[in-house]
Amino acid sequence: MNELELLKHIYATATTPSAEVPIPPGDDMAMVSVGGSSMLAAIDQVVAGCHYTEAVTPLSLVGRKAITRCLSDVAAMAARPLASLVAVALPVALGERRATELFDAVRETAEHYDCPLIGGDIAIYRQVAGPLVCSVAIMAEPTGLGPIRRAGARVGDRVYVTGVLGGTRADDGLGHHLLFEPRLAEARLLAKTLGQRLHAMIDLSDGLGRDASHLAERSGVQIVFDAERIPCRSGAPWRQALSEGEDYELCFVATGEVPSTLEGIPVTAAGEVCRREPGAPLVVVRSGGRNLDATELGWEHRSP
Amino acid sequence: MNELELLKHIYATATTPSAEVPIPPGDDMAMVSVGGSSMLAAIDQVVAGCHYTEAVTPLSLVGRKAITRCLSDVAAMAARPLASLVAVALPVALGERRATELFDAVRETAEHYDCPLIGGDIAIYRQVAGPLVCSVAIMAEPTGLGPIRRAGARVGDRVYVTGVLGGTRADDGLGHHLLFEPRLAEARLLAKTLGQRLHAMIDLSDGLGRDASHLAERSGVQIVFDAERIPCRSGAPWRQALSEGEDYELCFVATGEVPSTLEGIPVTAAGEVCRREPGAPLVVVRSGGRNLDATELGWEHRSP
Repeated sequence: MNELELLKHIYATATTPSAEVPIPPGDDMAMVSVGGSSMLAAIDQVVAGCHYTEAVTPLSLVGRKAITRCLSDVAAMAARPLASLVAVALPVALGERRATELFDAVRETAEHYDCPLIGGDIAIYRQVAGPLVCSVAIMAEPTGLGPIRRAGARVGDRVYVTGVLGGTRADDGLGHHLLFEPRLAEARLLAKTLGQRLHAMIDLSDGLGRDASHLAERSGVQIVFDAERIPCRSGAPWRQALSEGEDYELCFVATGEVPSTLEGIPVTAAGEVCRREPGAPLVVVRSGGRNLDATELGWEHRSP
Repeated sequence: MNELELLKHIYATATTPSAEVPIPPGDDMAMVSVGGSSMLAAIDQVVAGCHYTEAVTPLSLVGRKAITRCLSDVAAMAARPLASLVAVALPVALGERRATELFDAVRETAEHYDCPLIGGDIAIYRQVAGPLVCSVAIMAEPTGLGPIRRAGARVGDRVYVTGVLGGTRADDGLGHHLLFEPRLAEARLLAKTLGQRLHAMIDLSDGLGRDASHLAERSGVQIVFDAERIPCRSGAPWRQALSEGEDYELCFVATGEVPSTLEGIPVTAAGEVCRREPGAPLVVVRSGGRNLDATELGWEHRSP
């Protein structure tokens, strides 16, 4: 089974924009019309054993991640968070103290980012064993010139990455994937600074190779990275930085001058947008004179 | 562990209305302000072994129920569905064919009720066993005079129930709890017909006794049902009709004349709103000259 293939069944008939859904599924968030306004929405989940290591990760950080993962999608659209909803399914063996630790962290994180929890549902497994599942739906408001989409990259544009990539999971069960700051302020500053020169954006959850392939596919172009220019976390080789995932940094495509930092976070020009020949890979990495297909280097969304 | 107690940790600091969240958590849906408009939102989940019987219930009906449960909340506010989001965590052993059956049903049901899926997330358990968890967030638009709340019942009002209650789970693993029609049209017709005479409303998911207690608590009143007037499904005794849950009918409080049917669905006056003396139960059932405390007769949100 493959998550991306299964998702196609959900989206089968909902891929064209309409008055009610001006941005259909397939971007970091979808947009719906409500009254005379527009609202962005997305859903994501954190599952024990999939998105964190049950034996070592504190539940306060699990609760934090459930919210911050969604906020990273809000950042990718350069939007402002509005509110969130949480549904949690948990084993009865977790116990009340640990469950409380989780919920307090979800609520406090949501409030910290001005994204208050406005609804919740809790189910406790009683007859069956199962992992903790924490699903968060997030709503956001477009800002400035409107949401930044995945489509829009043009041949000749440059491709930028915020922060550093790779090495997101530490051996102690902690690490960047639990502690990252969603790039909300950076994204809005970027959209304000660049205006219409900011052509496309995505957040990096599945790995730069795979996430950039979404930008390339939606935009009908090829993205070419220079291996030596990919900003790597200390100790992470470029292949890992390109493929590990859970960086929760921004990858964006722009033309003209781009600031070298945003709110103190480094911004690196790591690639360029090229014409895509029929049958050519969506994303290529140039390393030592060779071109490698980087499309498939991300997180594998596939069962073994 | 108790779901309702745990939910309080989520809502701890979010119980007063604000400009951003005019209806805070604690109603069937919360309301947020977006631009100059208002939007309602809620989240709910369907868990294998909790909300359906894994061995016998077709996954197409599980997918249907994941959406229709949320639509019942939309009906309770007399609102119009806008869009939905789905997050599914599933065991790899489910297999692609059955997973596809589930997702197709979720999508088709959402579209049938004009509530298109605009986003989704799928996680597959690989290293761990666990039940299927299907979480749906729903967004809706207020109609007419605005959302109908849980608060608003006044002493002297009558309490009404749509349809019949009890006997919602059939021995064959099917039954009303999977096949019900959310009372969307009935609720909007009711709000339009009664206008400001419709004082409060809730949908019946946890059982009439427990759900009516939410109306009574929010309104600061006592609700008194007449056991002989509770509309029971054929074969269901009134205690079952009052306590079993998963009826997904409407319970509403109104003054003046109320139609005896809505869109062909019977409407029954089953109780009245009384002053609540300090320490008295929120909900009482009169049967054979005795008054029984009905508050605790609903679905038990508590681990064994």
